[in-house]
Amino acid sequence: MSHTFTGTVSGMTCGHCVASVTEELQELPGVTAVDVTLETGSVTVTSDQPLDREAVSAAVDEAGYQLV
Amino acid sequence: MSHTFTGTVSGMTCGHCVASVTEELQELPGVTAVDVTLETGSVTVTSDQPLDREAVSAAVDEAGYQLV
Repeated sequence: MSHTFTGTVSGMTCGHCVASVTEELQELPGVTAVDVTLETGSVTVTSDQPLDREAVSAAVDEAGYQLV
Repeated sequence: MSHTFTGTVSGMTCGHCVASVTEELQELPGVTAVDVTLETGSVTVTSDQPLDREAVSAAVDEAGYQLV
């Protein structure tokens, strides 16, 4: 079964930031797709197991940004 | 003898942008030091042979930014 996490990341200013966030989120267990939109900060993570917000937030932190 | 090129790059928004510009400028022939400041866009390239503006501009373009 597929799970979808949606949230908003603040502080991204360019495509490099999007790439960094995407890269970290892709490393979360079971992730099958990541969509990050620079303009809105919108983040969608699709996974084959549920993701808790703490794990997503930690990955975003790792990239140098913040899940708000 | 050491030569110094100074200029301004527009469009950099974060540290990743600075890293990209720095990386491209470091590949120019004879470059011994590169200093890029995000806040001002100021770029200083030190080299052991003169650098023409076209070459520096092309490197900045390659990184995805503009020498103004």
